[in-house]
Amino acid sequence: MNAVDKFASLLTLTREPFPASTKSAITGSRPDLRVPVRDVLLTNGECVSLYDTSGPYTDPSVEIDVRRGLPGVREAWIAERGDTESYEGRIHKAIDDGATHADRDAQRIAELRAGAASLQRTPRRAKAGANVTQMHYARRGIVTPEMEYVALRENGRREWMAEYMADAAREKRLAGNPMGASIPKIITPEFVRDEVARGRAIIPANINHPEVEPMAIGRNFKVKINANIGNSAVTSSIEEEVEKLVWAIRWGADNVMDLSTGRNIHTTRDWIVRNSPVPIGTVPIYQALEKVGGIAEDLTWEIYRDTLIEQAEQGVDYFTIHAGLRLPFIHLTANRRTGIVSRGGSIMAKWCIAHHKESFLYTHFEDICEIMKAYDVSFSLGDGLRPGCASDANDEAQFAELRTLGELTQIAWKHDVQTMIEGPGHVPMHLIQANMDEQLKHCHEAPFYTLGPLTIDIAPGYDHIASAIGAAMIGWFGTAMLCYVTPKEHLGLPDRDDVKQGIIAYKIAAHAADVAKGHPGARARDDALSQARFDFRWQDQFNLGLDPDTAREFHDETLPKDSSKVAHFCSMCGPKFCSMKITQEVREYAAQKGLDEGAAVEAGMAGKSAEFKAGGGEIYIPVKPVV
Amino acid sequence: MNAVDKFASLLTLTREPFPASTKSAITGSRPDLRVPVRDVLLTNGECVSLYDTSGPYTDPSVEIDVRRGLPGVREAWIAERGDTESYEGRIHKAIDDGATHADRDAQRIAELRAGAASLQRTPRRAKAGANVTQMHYARRGIVTPEMEYVALRENGRREWMAEYMADAAREKRLAGNPMGASIPKIITPEFVRDEVARGRAIIPANINHPEVEPMAIGRNFKVKINANIGNSAVTSSIEEEVEKLVWAIRWGADNVMDLSTGRNIHTTRDWIVRNSPVPIGTVPIYQALEKVGGIAEDLTWEIYRDTLIEQAEQGVDYFTIHAGLRLPFIHLTANRRTGIVSRGGSIMAKWCIAHHKESFLYTHFEDICEIMKAYDVSFSLGDGLRPGCASDANDEAQFAELRTLGELTQIAWKHDVQTMIEGPGHVPMHLIQANMDEQLKHCHEAPFYTLGPLTIDIAPGYDHIASAIGAAMIGWFGTAMLCYVTPKEHLGLPDRDDVKQGIIAYKIAAHAADVAKGHPGARARDDALSQARFDFRWQDQFNLGLDPDTAREFHDETLPKDSSKVAHFCSMCGPKFCSMKITQEVREYAAQKGLDEGAAVEAGMAGKSAEFKAGGGEIYIPVKPVV
Repeated sequence: MNAVDKFASLLTLTREPFPASTKSAITGSRPDLRVPVRDVLLTNGECVSLYDTSGPYTDPSVEIDVRRGLPGVREAWIAERGDTESYEGRIHKAIDDGATHADRDAQRIAELRAGAASLQRTPRRAKAGANVTQMHYARRGIVTPEMEYVALRENGRREWMAEYMADAAREKRLAGNPMGASIPKIITPEFVRDEVARGRAIIPANINHPEVEPMAIGRNFKVKINANIGNSAVTSSIEEEVEKLVWAIRWGADNVMDLSTGRNIHTTRDWIVRNSPVPIGTVPIYQALEKVGGIAEDLTWEIYRDTLIEQAEQGVDYFTIHAGLRLPFIHLTANRRTGIVSRGGSIMAKWCIAHHKESFLYTHFEDICEIMKAYDVSFSLGDGLRPGCASDANDEAQFAELRTLGELTQIAWKHDVQTMIEGPGHVPMHLIQANMDEQLKHCHEAPFYTLGPLTIDIAPGYDHIASAIGAAMIGWFGTAMLCYVTPKEHLGLPDRDDVKQGIIAYKIAAHAADVAKGHPGARARDDALSQARFDFRWQDQFNLGLDPDTAREFHDETLPKDSSKVAHFCSMCGPKFCSMKITQEVREYAAQKGLDEGAAVEAGMAGKSAEFKAGGGEIYIPVKPVV
Repeated sequence: MNAVDKFASLLTLTREPFPASTKSAITGSRPDLRVPVRDVLLTNGECVSLYDTSGPYTDPSVEIDVRRGLPGVREAWIAERGDTESYEGRIHKAIDDGATHADRDAQRIAELRAGAASLQRTPRRAKAGANVTQMHYARRGIVTPEMEYVALRENGRREWMAEYMADAAREKRLAGNPMGASIPKIITPEFVRDEVARGRAIIPANINHPEVEPMAIGRNFKVKINANIGNSAVTSSIEEEVEKLVWAIRWGADNVMDLSTGRNIHTTRDWIVRNSPVPIGTVPIYQALEKVGGIAEDLTWEIYRDTLIEQAEQGVDYFTIHAGLRLPFIHLTANRRTGIVSRGGSIMAKWCIAHHKESFLYTHFEDICEIMKAYDVSFSLGDGLRPGCASDANDEAQFAELRTLGELTQIAWKHDVQTMIEGPGHVPMHLIQANMDEQLKHCHEAPFYTLGPLTIDIAPGYDHIASAIGAAMIGWFGTAMLCYVTPKEHLGLPDRDDVKQGIIAYKIAAHAADVAKGHPGARARDDALSQARFDFRWQDQFNLGLDPDTAREFHDETLPKDSSKVAHFCSMCGPKFCSMKITQEVREYAAQKGLDEGAAVEAGMAGKSAEFKAGGGEIYIPVKPVV
């Protein structure tokens, strides 16, 4: 099987709808504003409606050709605003796919580009003097279709939750602790506009990525997760990366970052962006470095600027830019155990030292803002000095950079450029809260976007778990998006299954955070699943889970028969020991008696029950409680 | 391959020493007091010494025959105290292996018992009027060998940590937050005695389990983890369970609970206890129920009492006893989403309702204490009313029972019986702290032993992760032992790999808690691993991890060549992009200049570097920070 056939066959797998699920849409104020949801039909007739990141791929009625790309759901909205223009755009150069490999791979690249000829788009940019960011619109009081889309998406179909949230006493007991967030019961388009206007949320949506289904990253919205994909110099191919994208959003990635560093870097990105219904982020310095043959000190502002424009024209929705790593901070890392572990950070540190100059990302920051606002690319201000191990956590290098990111946020906002802030990394549990506090204090509530953090360093092979702990906590404390970590972290490049493992671990973390914050309705899905569990509706239990396939497979390993799927016990305890079964029997017994359990108990101490043998000869010795 | 051969072959695998590791011992005040440690030899000549739960199995110099059991390391200590006597003991009855299966399995049981004839021991019990609990000795000021053993074990070899903890500024910055725990820098035998005397720690060590390597469960010691094994009516065999035990302690289980509920229940336990160097816990009501054919209402105090004695004679170290589930609390579960999910709890609830009587576990609690103190079996007071889903968390049923467990703790302590308290279960993150607070308040700092808690309910197949989040947090807050959850939770019986996955997830949680609490030296292992990572000592990085095999395998998947193990890059970024390599280059550059990084930077703004090309034509636009 050649690479393309293998890809096609994998894609067929990843396009299967989820079990018992129907792709559906909530329509907004205009017919072309259709927000996707996944409706899960339960065996008891209920329908549970879920937030859906998988795009058209899980809709069997949509024909998809990855060589043509997805339909542009936002095209009309962008055009209607009348503030952009099509233009010739930058001419593709061989070096865009990497200097080192340009010659060797010329033929392969030519093939790939020819095969994906229809992925080439004529770019748009803001008309002279215009600013096309969602923040700019928001600050002028305009509610864009993107904002309305986000509002509908965050709310989802609330109706189904009603019965799960009807018990006022329970809701009061379980009320979340929002840790300073201000989450309304219903998200209105106007609320979204206000959050974007004040910088507390971003809607990453490059005007050259009309395929994106708008979503928001902000403390008062659902906690989101990001999955990284991307080839490296060592391994993997374009087709694999596209399939990894589809796979990632299937399992719930809200955003995907293309961190390719190897060959075919430009062309890979064409394939990814055109086929992605979720925002795509990149770290442009990676490509810029490829263009100078991997020699950090050969980087120039011009090469970098050209790369930003190249990627903005392709439709990248946010750029990680390590502009807060300033020359005066570099020496602060000298006594660290693991120095600088951010790739972008270390490249810029090397450049700064080599030239004895301040970082060009910092000195050209306003120039960068000009580019960002012409395409509505959002900043993801990179933490080049994040700790690379627990013992470097929360040090002065890290916090000096964070404070600088706060300064840069103000500059970006002056230009109405949407901005989020990247955070660590490696942080023991007891130091996590300080990260959130410092970020809120210095970055004025711009969304925080953290990598983990990993709470310990001794779990190579399991860092998705070590970091899910930190991610759940910092998500509760206010982080808006969690960048996933896979089991391969620190060891190798994640494959298809690693990507899934990382995503599921982070869906768990994000959902745990939503539940803890008291995000309206977040817990209803847990309640629906728990009810299915109690009712022995096995299929519903599987289908409501984050990964129905694995749950079903695990159950089948011990109890493979179809009859077990309706069995009123499970393999853990066997038929006689099932506590849920016993609970049901207890309730039934109470009902038979014509008494509810409460009354049965109140009356019970005096009663005799002839039909049950009391064990003979018990001597009841009352225990006197010692208080 | 028959079952016994298969078992022997598996056991060979699980007996392999860890890579680059040597089993070693710290000798105490007497030559027979030898505390095991695992010394990991690093490629740079350092030796990192780790807490070791694996018993003699990972020592290739020890010959082990599971049909004879392990040597009794505590035998002399118990005998020397002169307060116990050997006695005939209870005669084994066919019904001990379960009423239902007694006839059918008679031959198989006879075979198993004959094959393990030398596993039968003459039991010991306290002489008339004596109390042989560690708590009783502690309260009389006696430091037992068990207490000294625990002290040495908790400290380990501290020497190797010195260089990792030499930086005072770093130690101050990273100082843990003990959340009310009082952890001394060095654990003395006297400290252990005092902790046991006041009930803040237990040393589960039945006098009939001399094979146990003593360990402590308490808030001021390292956080421990428990793994559950045990056959059920549906599946698995004795051999599998013993191998699972050896496998579990290999990966770090500090305690193992035998939750068998099916056939051969007595005989399985013989095999497990005799071959276990870690404390074994059980839930005696499971066996008692087997004796009455699974009919809860047929249970009697006599059958239960006889089962306690039977298991105490075999050497079980702690009993889960659901004595806090009182009749008046049962109706509090009527409106729960998932009712009573504890097996033991639901059995007792059914009995109480059927008889309209208070639980015999509650009314006979002092009788139970008399048995416990004659063998030094510790209480694990069960939470029969723990929540079975997030929406039942922290309700009145749960807390009413918890308060009762506090009352019972006081009664147990009146008898000098060691006691810990079981906790949930299913609790969203924001409600976890309240569990710890209530437990500390009502249970007088008796060790808390929680199952997870799971923070969300939508992750069947991944509940080890959903619960590791809660476990890490509650461990930090003060829980002394974390009962693991495997990926099969709610779905099926865990197999060998599930057991390992559950254990690793919980080692992560426990270690994250130790680091957050600031347990002395806990972070040193992280530092050693991080240093190895920074130095590109791949083998050391693998060998210092919780699971060297998986880390090595993951690395090999992308970079299989042996040369990659000394490569100064990894497959994540490839040779040019490696940030750690770049950091090293930055440092080397600074050193070449005869300047440290700090001085280089301070001097650098003015300097020119002829040997590095400055990118042509940059125009530096100073950015005015907006504060």
